[in-house]
Amino acid sequence: MAHLVDITAADDPRLADYRDLRDVQLRKNLEAEHGLFLAEGEKVVRRAVEGGFAARSFLMAPRWLDGLADVLDSSDAPCYVVPEALAEEVTGFHVHRGALASLERRPLPPVPDVIDGARSVLVLEDVVDHTNVGAIFRCGAALGFDAVLLAPRCADPLYRRSVKVAMGAVFSVPWTRLPDWYGALPTLSAAGFTTVALTLAADAVPIEDAVAGLDRVALVLGSEGHGLSDHWQESADRRAIIPMARTREHGVDSLNVAAASAVACYVTARR
Amino acid sequence: MAHLVDITAADDPRLADYRDLRDVQLRKNLEAEHGLFLAEGEKVVRRAVEGGFAARSFLMAPRWLDGLADVLDSSDAPCYVVPEALAEEVTGFHVHRGALASLERRPLPPVPDVIDGARSVLVLEDVVDHTNVGAIFRCGAALGFDAVLLAPRCADPLYRRSVKVAMGAVFSVPWTRLPDWYGALPTLSAAGFTTVALTLAADAVPIEDAVAGLDRVALVLGSEGHGLSDHWQESADRRAIIPMARTREHGVDSLNVAAASAVACYVTARR
Repeated sequence: MAHLVDITAADDPRLADYRDLRDVQLRKNLEAEHGLFLAEGEKVVRRAVEGGFAARSFLMAPRWLDGLADVLDSSDAPCYVVPEALAEEVTGFHVHRGALASLERRPLPPVPDVIDGARSVLVLEDVVDHTNVGAIFRCGAALGFDAVLLAPRCADPLYRRSVKVAMGAVFSVPWTRLPDWYGALPTLSAAGFTTVALTLAADAVPIEDAVAGLDRVALVLGSEGHGLSDHWQESADRRAIIPMARTREHGVDSLNVAAASAVACYVTARR
Repeated sequence: MAHLVDITAADDPRLADYRDLRDVQLRKNLEAEHGLFLAEGEKVVRRAVEGGFAARSFLMAPRWLDGLADVLDSSDAPCYVVPEALAEEVTGFHVHRGALASLERRPLPPVPDVIDGARSVLVLEDVVDHTNVGAIFRCGAALGFDAVLLAPRCADPLYRRSVKVAMGAVFSVPWTRLPDWYGALPTLSAAGFTTVALTLAADAVPIEDAVAGLDRVALVLGSEGHGLSDHWQESADRRAIIPMARTREHGVDSLNVAAASAVACYVTARR
């Protein structure tokens, strides 16, 4: 069972994992170097621990102890109990949902382990925005996707913002990094998946037609700004588009990547 | 043609419309009292002016003048030209896309004018998050919806964050406020729309079935937290759900309102 430790000074070194959460660059370095990540909010903290991640510590105001009692019971990590104002001082922002946990990252599994038995897989090329990565994981989980594969430059699903937006789906959906950007899609094709690249290319077919009747599908999504690289578009088995309205002016009405992902996941899940 | 005015002091009173953009509460009061709203970024500024909104002024660094020359040509408002650092000092944040405009709000049109001839309409009850309002407008525009109707407590589509996330779709899609919350949906039914409420209620039917074969549809979406009010759920003609995956744990995998809207708009657009 987690042991409770009252802390009253913001500069207490035991709170190092939680310091300056607003400083994105500092956090990225710290989290990579120490192999940690943060979960925020009662629900997300619970999902992280239930997902099998080992807690390094918990940080919360007293009023959150009861709601997380079962989670704390299941862990040997210390739980730092602090006044809410002190939590805010340490982290640099208002901790809306009150509870934080610092957890150990795990080694990423090999791709074959992640896709073994999977029927619907999401593949993200260079989605660099943590909010979008989190939103896509949440969509994938809600719509029954079995796994997510990330190109080497895709943003970190365990970064705090991704975890929060995903509502913890990054703990429940199996995922890993693709070691080889260049050969990634042909490798998936060889493993029995039909790779379907979402693109605005003129020769793309409507997504419903592209996935109709397929067994194993890898739905391939690109970056916010420029979409998929030419190489991934060309090395995918099929290219698909979400049919959109004729625009009133000059083509500025389009779906953002999170909305496009939601639609594409929905259509693919119902193929 | 807009006349260019070089400004070198952050406290110049002519920049009052742009001051402290980060202060949400201050901005809401200022914008309501002065009947103004802001557009940010070359593309969005252009869409606002092309959408027929009258500019009070423009604010930009010199390097944005060329790209917006045609827009400035079409307006009589002053264009304040400032160094980028000064723009940041006035607004309180880094102005990524460089150009800002302050524009006049217009009186909201009556509901009958907005729905006249419309076949697909979005109705938002209490969506209080500006990002979600903007995202829903963008989806609606991309997927061919003809109009948006907002309950009295729904967040402001012309607030800066809504405008930005919508990529200016709030200027191209006709919208207005519903004056009467209680009777809103029956009024739409009487006008020939089938009102379809998106809900997680147990007796809701899949969205595809709910909209199949309908002519005029009003798709009704609720707030982020609690969804639609009981009254709106009950006074809608139909209740619909997006079928989701069986969850691995305790039902926490669900779509957020922006993703759910994207899917519902897509399905409704293709009915």
